[in-house]
Amino acid sequence: MRTIDINCDMGESFGSFTIGSDETIIAAVSSANIACGFHAGDPLVMDRTVRLAKENGVGVGAHPGFPDLMGFGRRKIQTFPGEITRYLIYQIGALAAFATAHGVNLQHVKPHGALYNMAAADEAVAREVVEAVRAVNGNLILVCQPGSVLAHMAEKEGLRVAREVFPDRAYLADGRLAPRNLPGAVIHDPQAVRDRVVRLLEERVLFSLDGEKIPLEADTLCVHGDTPGAAELARIIRKELEEAGIAVEPMGRFL
Amino acid sequence: MRTIDINCDMGESFGSFTIGSDETIIAAVSSANIACGFHAGDPLVMDRTVRLAKENGVGVGAHPGFPDLMGFGRRKIQTFPGEITRYLIYQIGALAAFATAHGVNLQHVKPHGALYNMAAADEAVAREVVEAVRAVNGNLILVCQPGSVLAHMAEKEGLRVAREVFPDRAYLADGRLAPRNLPGAVIHDPQAVRDRVVRLLEERVLFSLDGEKIPLEADTLCVHGDTPGAAELARIIRKELEEAGIAVEPMGRFL
Amino acid sequence: MRTIDINCDMGESFGSFTIGSDETIIAAVSSANIACGFHAGDPLVMDRTVRLAKENGVGVGAHPGFPDLMGFGRRKIQTFPGEITRYLIYQIGALAAFATAHGVNLQHVKPHGALYNMAAADEAVAREVVEAVRAVNGNLILVCQPGSVLAHMAEKEGLRVAREVFPDRAYLADGRLAPRNLPGAVIHDPQAVRDRVVRLLEERVLFSLDGEKIPLEADTLCVHGDTPGAAELARIIRKELEEAGIAVEPMGRFL
Amino acid sequence: MRTIDINCDMGESFGSFTIGSDETIIAAVSSANIACGFHAGDPLVMDRTVRLAKENGVGVGAHPGFPDLMGFGRRKIQTFPGEITRYLIYQIGALAAFATAHGVNLQHVKPHGALYNMAAADEAVAREVVEAVRAVNGNLILVCQPGSVLAHMAEKEGLRVAREVFPDRAYLADGRLAPRNLPGAVIHDPQAVRDRVVRLLEERVLFSLDGEKIPLEADTLCVHGDTPGAAELARIIRKELEEAGIAVEPMGRFL
Repeated sequence: MRTIDINCDMGESFGSFTIGSDETIIAAVSSANIACGFHAGDPLVMDRTVRLAKENGVGVGAHPGFPDLMGFGRRKIQTFPGEITRYLIYQIGALAAFATAHGVNLQHVKPHGALYNMAAADEAVAREVVEAVRAVNGNLILVCQPGSVLAHMAEKEGLRVAREVFPDRAYLADGRLAPRNLPGAVIHDPQAVRDRVVRLLEERVLFSLDGEKIPLEADTLCVHGDTPGAAELARIIRKELEEAGIAVEPMGRFL
Repeated sequence: MRTIDINCDMGESFGSFTIGSDETIIAAVSSANIACGFHAGDPLVMDRTVRLAKENGVGVGAHPGFPDLMGFGRRKIQTFPGEITRYLIYQIGALAAFATAHGVNLQHVKPHGALYNMAAADEAVAREVVEAVRAVNGNLILVCQPGSVLAHMAEKEGLRVAREVFPDRAYLADGRLAPRNLPGAVIHDPQAVRDRVVRLLEERVLFSLDGEKIPLEADTLCVHGDTPGAAELARIIRKELEEAGIAVEPMGRFL
Repeated sequence: MRTIDINCDMGESFGSFTIGSDETIIAAVSSANIACGFHAGDPLVMDRTVRLAKENGVGVGAHPGFPDLMGFGRRKIQTFPGEITRYLIYQIGALAAFATAHGVNLQHVKPHGALYNMAAADEAVAREVVEAVRAVNGNLILVCQPGSVLAHMAEKEGLRVAREVFPDRAYLADGRLAPRNLPGAVIHDPQAVRDRVVRLLEERVLFSLDGEKIPLEADTLCVHGDTPGAAELARIIRKELEEAGIAVEPMGRFL
Repeated sequence: MRTIDINCDMGESFGSFTIGSDETIIAAVSSANIACGFHAGDPLVMDRTVRLAKENGVGVGAHPGFPDLMGFGRRKIQTFPGEITRYLIYQIGALAAFATAHGVNLQHVKPHGALYNMAAADEAVAREVVEAVRAVNGNLILVCQPGSVLAHMAEKEGLRVAREVFPDRAYLADGRLAPRNLPGAVIHDPQAVRDRVVRLLEERVLFSLDGEKIPLEADTLCVHGDTPGAAELARIIRKELEEAGIAVEPMGRFL
């Protein structure tokens, strides 16, 4: 039986500023990427998000980003060599302490926003990410876009890698995500998303924006918590997967 | 042979803002209280301060404070119940990750500034500090003022405690630090400081500001890195101790 | 004809973090208290909130708070003498520049959260607020709770004062707001709120929580933008006022 | 008689973090570029730096930067169109309020660090800077590198421009600053600096790193406050200028 993980960014509130609806979407996912206080999240939010994940049997992951609350970690910031590694060590360590406090193991790391995009394409950034994971805990799973610079490097360096696919996003023929401004880049129809997911898992292919069949391996599917209808979409995806005989489990159980 | 630790706050620079002269004073101390990014410190500074401590055989401790860079963690901030615990879990975890990255064990925790003062006198704050240490790693040593609310509670709860004395600060007859605005509250003469330290270690007493003999047990002496002459004073204290046959070691080796 | 102002806190979003529904509630109010980047708000949010106010003929005010984004300016922070004055000068100046950029005059200042509460009760804090307003622009209106320490001092010092009443909050017999945790402290029934407002404006009294008639003068009514139903309640209040022959105007036009 | 301004970045301390020695160098300069709380500075520091400038008859200018305390405003940050304009409006307004509080006029604006470099070379950034100055106060002088994109645009748009030369920095033959990593890029010999300054003012030329004579017009000379010997160098420059019959005045008096 095929097994897959469903991950979602969580714990992105900050003080009185609320983002996402974690309590709702948690039921549909198997892994949580928890913000670590740099682009979002604060110690109170981190604590209660780790507890929420634990209570729902959801894998706990660190979701580190640039130190840029105003930009929500979505914009590039110049750094010194080694600076990104240290940003990640700091944030992974902070989240790991909450995992310890709640008696759960930290399962994975998924870089956020600009960091995710930069690490996917830029060798120097990818290396900083790999070094951070190894420095803190070489057993953590690193969530990467399949085929990305980060995925290749992490595998070469012997890290555990989870290949991530976005079921509601269109891909280009070369396997990269279609930019959001292209028509059709975001797929809103739940039935279409469901069909893509089942084909992806059964045939290991997706159709690209221009109709090409592209081979794609997925260990984890990313759903979003901050858009209207996201929790509903996640629930549908999970139900369809289970009806198709595909088990949904935290990535740490099968990778 | 009597053994004592000498601790110093370190890693309190932030970005281009430099505080202290860590590279100089490190030679005179045996334990470093390293700022964790809330009242001071940043990931680059934390990384290089842990490395500096390791290279000098100095024990690595977390020095968590209020999230208040502008106030340098020296002023009271209202918090929700449990908030201080989470502030500490976060910061201890972040520093612990740098310790892991450098292959050293985290040795101790010493709250900073307003947090140190509040935990010494306020039972609710003391409890939050104790809970944070237990949640992250119950084996960490907690640095406390002897006789403080925090010291009593930490001992009662079975934590390892290091009793801290400030050799260049005068004490009141009841064992509390004399407020800095009192005449004579800060002792600048190295010879006077030296005499106090030797008497403290040999006879376990200090003379209070008004000449009372007060019994005081010390496991660690705090020296300061951010005042002119501090490194020199620390060097003198260490030399005098060693000449008096008192060994200076990281607290983790003898507590 | 009697005239009154309706004010609302606005521009309390920060980067990707959204608070309130300014675009909806703006139609019901006549003055906007705009956050200045310390407890909430950022330069982009401030700019578009000033523009929104201008487009709706709404008076522009500064809503300065403590530098505490995580605590949303709702908690006390220790300060040096003169520090609050400087916090306010900074924030009022920043907002005034956006008013200048949009060709409108800054109309008023209303301290936020903990600062509002502290200035209402503590003479030293009240003085710091008064000094800030005088230092930047002594012609600005200061929004105060009637009978508060701040209101008395501001009047004595010759500042223009707008006495503020919260129509959906119960008052104690001594004229202070009933704490939120008392039963009945927040009034949710629009009809009840409407009755209170009309009586307040026609008879200059409110009934206190325990049924006492308390005299209260109001220049401006505060409505909230961040609770469900708030915009609807504000609309009802405004409509009832206008049907009762009471004009709703920015405070700067009639004070 | 020829007149020139000497400017220096000031007020770059933050809370307990001290940068520069403003009290010393103020005697040698005629204009102060005062940090506005984004890359450095805080409301207390801004207030006392404006007072210091006033007491010394030194022109008060805003020195706005990116919102990046950790990076001291020295690194590029991605922004939305219009975001830089709003960053500058905010900061100029905040500083202008302190100028008002001390009864002095704001004289000039000089962008800091990465913003200065980006505005010198990138048309879109230059336009955002020009728009900010016009939006707040079109009479402010904008300090620019002569020949830069910003200088050209500001002049074309009718802003007052002060052409700035760095007397202790070498220039390339095309008039741009020699990168700091080139040998000879920073000139440490006070006599050499003095000779350059006098030639610059009398003959309106500098010799480039490779010995070319480059024409260069200067309205203001930039000296640095954060390097050892800077205050001494500034004093020498000022003395030499005055002995050569060149008056040193705040730029607002002669531009």
